Amino acid sequence: MTNTIRVPAPADFHVHLRQEEMARLVVPHVRKGGFSLAYVMPNLKPPITTAALALEYKAQLQAIDPSVEYLMTLYLSPDLTPDDIIKAKEAGIVGVKSYPRGVTTNSDGGIESYEIYYPVFEAMQRVDMVLNLHGEIPSDPLTVSIHVFVILSLSPIQNTCVLNAEPHFLPHLHSLHKAFPRLRIVLEHATTRAAVEAVKACGPTVACTITAHHLDLTVDDWAGQSFHFCKPVAKYPDDRQALREVILEGHPRFFLGSDSAPHPIDSKAISTASHGCAAGVYTAPILLPLLAHLLESFGALDRLEGFVSTFGRRFYQRELDATDPEVIILQRADAFVVEDKYEAEQVDVIPFWAGKRLGWQISSQ
Amino acid sequence: MTNTIRVPAPADFHVHLRQEEMARLVVPHVRKGGFSLAYVMPNLKPPITTAALALEYKAQLQAIDPSVEYLMTLYLSPDLTPDDIIKAKEAGIVGVKSYPRGVTTNSDGGIESYEIYYPVFEAMQRVDMVLNLHGEIPSDPLTVSIHVFVILSLSPIQNTCVLNAEPHFLPHLHSLHKAFPRLRIVLEHATTRAAVEAVKACGPTVACTITAHHLDLTVDDWAGQSFHFCKPVAKYPDDRQALREVILEGHPRFFLGSDSAPHPIDSKAISTASHGCAAGVYTAPILLPLLAHLLESFGALDRLEGFVSTFGRRFYQRELDATDPEVIILQRADAFVVEDKYEAEQVDVIPFWAGKRLGWQISSQ
Repeated sequence: MTNTIRVPAPADFHVHLRQEEMARLVVPHVRKGGFSLAYVMPNLKPPITTAALALEYKAQLQAIDPSVEYLMTLYLSPDLTPDDIIKAKEAGIVGVKSYPRGVTTNSDGGIESYEIYYPVFEAMQRVDMVLNLHGEIPSDPLTVSIHVFVILSLSPIQNTCVLNAEPHFLPHLHSLHKAFPRLRIVLEHATTRAAVEAVKACGPTVACTITAHHLDLTVDDWAGQSFHFCKPVAKYPDDRQALREVILEGHPRFFLGSDSAPHPIDSKAISTASHGCAAGVYTAPILLPLLAHLLESFGALDRLEGFVSTFGRRFYQRELDATDPEVIILQRADAFVVEDKYEAEQVDVIPFWAGKRLGWQISSQ
Repeated sequence: MTNTIRVPAPADFHVHLRQEEMARLVVPHVRKGGFSLAYVMPNLKPPITTAALALEYKAQLQAIDPSVEYLMTLYLSPDLTPDDIIKAKEAGIVGVKSYPRGVTTNSDGGIESYEIYYPVFEAMQRVDMVLNLHGEIPSDPLTVSIHVFVILSLSPIQNTCVLNAEPHFLPHLHSLHKAFPRLRIVLEHATTRAAVEAVKACGPTVACTITAHHLDLTVDDWAGQSFHFCKPVAKYPDDRQALREVILEGHPRFFLGSDSAPHPIDSKAISTASHGCAAGVYTAPILLPLLAHLLESFGALDRLEGFVSTFGRRFYQRELDATDPEVIILQRADAFVVEDKYEAEQVDVIPFWAGKRLGWQISSQ
C-alpha cells in the first residue's frame, strides 16, 4: 500500500484569489494547499479587462506570496480589441475568460453572443492565447408577469435552468472549436457526462478542467445546503461518475482547475427567504490532500500526478524541466481534520469539508 | 376584469399541522389562508399509526380551531394490519399515507417495498379508504467508501437523486393501481411532467395533488436558497409548465394539496457547512390569495374553484350540498404584503413569499 506520494509542482488551472483583505487571507492558501502555480480568474470588481490591470493585480498577489507562479487572464467584454490581445500576449497574459451574463459571481458584464468576439478570438488564435469558457447559458427569464393587471398566456419555454445550463452551452463550444480549430480552448469546471463527451470529441486544442468538489458532490448535497452551492451546480450521480471515469482513464486533456472560490460566511449563510447565497466552494487550503483523498476513494490515486500537474502544465505549455526542484510530498494521515473556518479581521471563510477528516496530508519534510 | 371571486369552502388535501406550540401557531392559519377543510398528515413524532392516536390528534386540532373540518390519516408502517384498517374506517379515518424511507421530514419509519402491504391495501380497497403516496424513491446510497484503507472500484449506480426520485417512483404507482384498481390513490405533490402524465394515464380512482409553491418555483429558486427547499424539490421549468397546464385544462383528478410544512426558522436557515436544512415550504396563512395570484399569472383564474374546492371534494366524497353557507370572497389587493414571519413564544416560521405582494386578499365581509 502506498503511504507516500511525491507530486511535482502541482498546478491549479482555475482559482479565485479576490482582492484586498480577502486576497490577503486566501492567497497564502494556494501554497498551503500544496500548489505552486495558480491560473488566476479575472472576475474582480471592476473586472480585469486590460493587460495593465492584470499586471497590477499580479503584483498585488506577488506582494502577498511571491513563491507562487501566477498566470493571469483577462475578462472577455465588448471593450476588448484584437490589439489589446496582442499587447496582453506581449505582457505575458495567458488567457481570456468568458462568462455568460449573470450566471455566477461578478458576471454581470458577461457575454451574450460569441459572434461579436470573433475578431478577438482570431487574434488570440494567432498569438496563441487560451480561451477559458464558463460553459453555461443563462436560465430562462421569468416567463410569467405577475403584474396584477396583466394575464399572459403560456408561452413556449426554453426549459433552461441551472441543471441543463451546461449541456445547453455545448453547441457553442463546438462552434467555437470549428471556427477556430487552432485556438486553445478550456471548458472550465465540467460537471456533466455530456460535457466530458463533448470535450473528448474535440481536437487536441480543446481541454477541460475539473474541480475537486465536483468529484464529491451531487445535487443532493447542495439541496438545502448553501455552502455546497456553486456554479455550475453539481449534477446527477451519473455525471459525477463521468468526471471520475475520465480521471481514471488518465485522459490528458482533463486536468485540475479547482474553481476554489472564497466567499465571506455571511454571503454563503442563509437566514431569510428574501435572497439566495453566493455561488462557490472553497477548497484551496486543503486542495492537494483533498484530491488525493477523493481520487483514492474511486481508485484513481495513481492518476493524481497527471491530473494535478502533468496534463495541465502540458496544455498550458508550462511543463517542468528535469531540474525543477519543487516536489510536494503527501503522507497518509490518521487525524488530519479540515479547519472549521479561516478568519481575517473583517472576513471569514468556511472551507469545503470543514471539520471532516482527510486521509492524506502534506508532509512538512 | 374580475375584481371579486367567490370560492365555496376551499379544501386543502395535504397539510402539516404539527404538534404542541407549533400546532398552536399554525392550526389557525388554515382558516386565515381561506380554508375550512384540512387533510392532515400523520408524520408526527411519534407517527400517527392507529385510529386512537388519530382521534386524539384530531381532538387536539379541534381544541385549537374547531371551525375547520380535519380529515385524518394514518402513517403506513409494518405494524398496520387489515383489522386496523377496518377499525380506522369505522373511526372516520379517511386515508393512509405512505412515506418512502428517509426522504422527508419524520420519514425514518417509511416503507421500503410495497408488496408486504398488499393485505392492508386489499382491506383499504374493500372499505374504501384512500392511499396517499409520497411518490419518491430514496437517492443512491453513497457508492464510495471514504475509509482510508479501502479502495472501492466504481460500481454500477442507479443514478437516483432528488431530481429523478419522483419519475423513478412512478412504476410503483402503476403497479399499485393495477393490483388494486378500485383503491383510491392520490399521488401527492406532483412536481414533474412525467408524474402528471402517469396520473392522467390511470383510471378514475387515481388522483394527484399539486402544491401552490410548485406552481411558482423551479430548481433555480432553491439553488442556494434553503427556504425554498422542499421534498419533492421543484424541478425544471418544463415540469412547472406541466403542472400549470393540467390546471389550465381543468382536469378533475388534479387538485390542491398545499403540503404546507412549517419548520422553525433555525431548521430552515443555514449557518454552517455541516448539515442541511429541513425540507418544507410554508404557505398555509396566505394559501388562497397566493393561489389566486399564481393561477391568474398563467391565465387559469377561472380554474381556481375547481382546483381548490370542487375536484378534491368530489374525489374525497366531501362534496358541498346546495345549502352549505361557507363561501370565501377574494378581492383584488393593491398592497397585500405577506408577513415576514409568524412567531410564537418558542418557535417562529418564515412563510413563502415573505415580504412580497399578492394581487388578491380575503375579504373580511
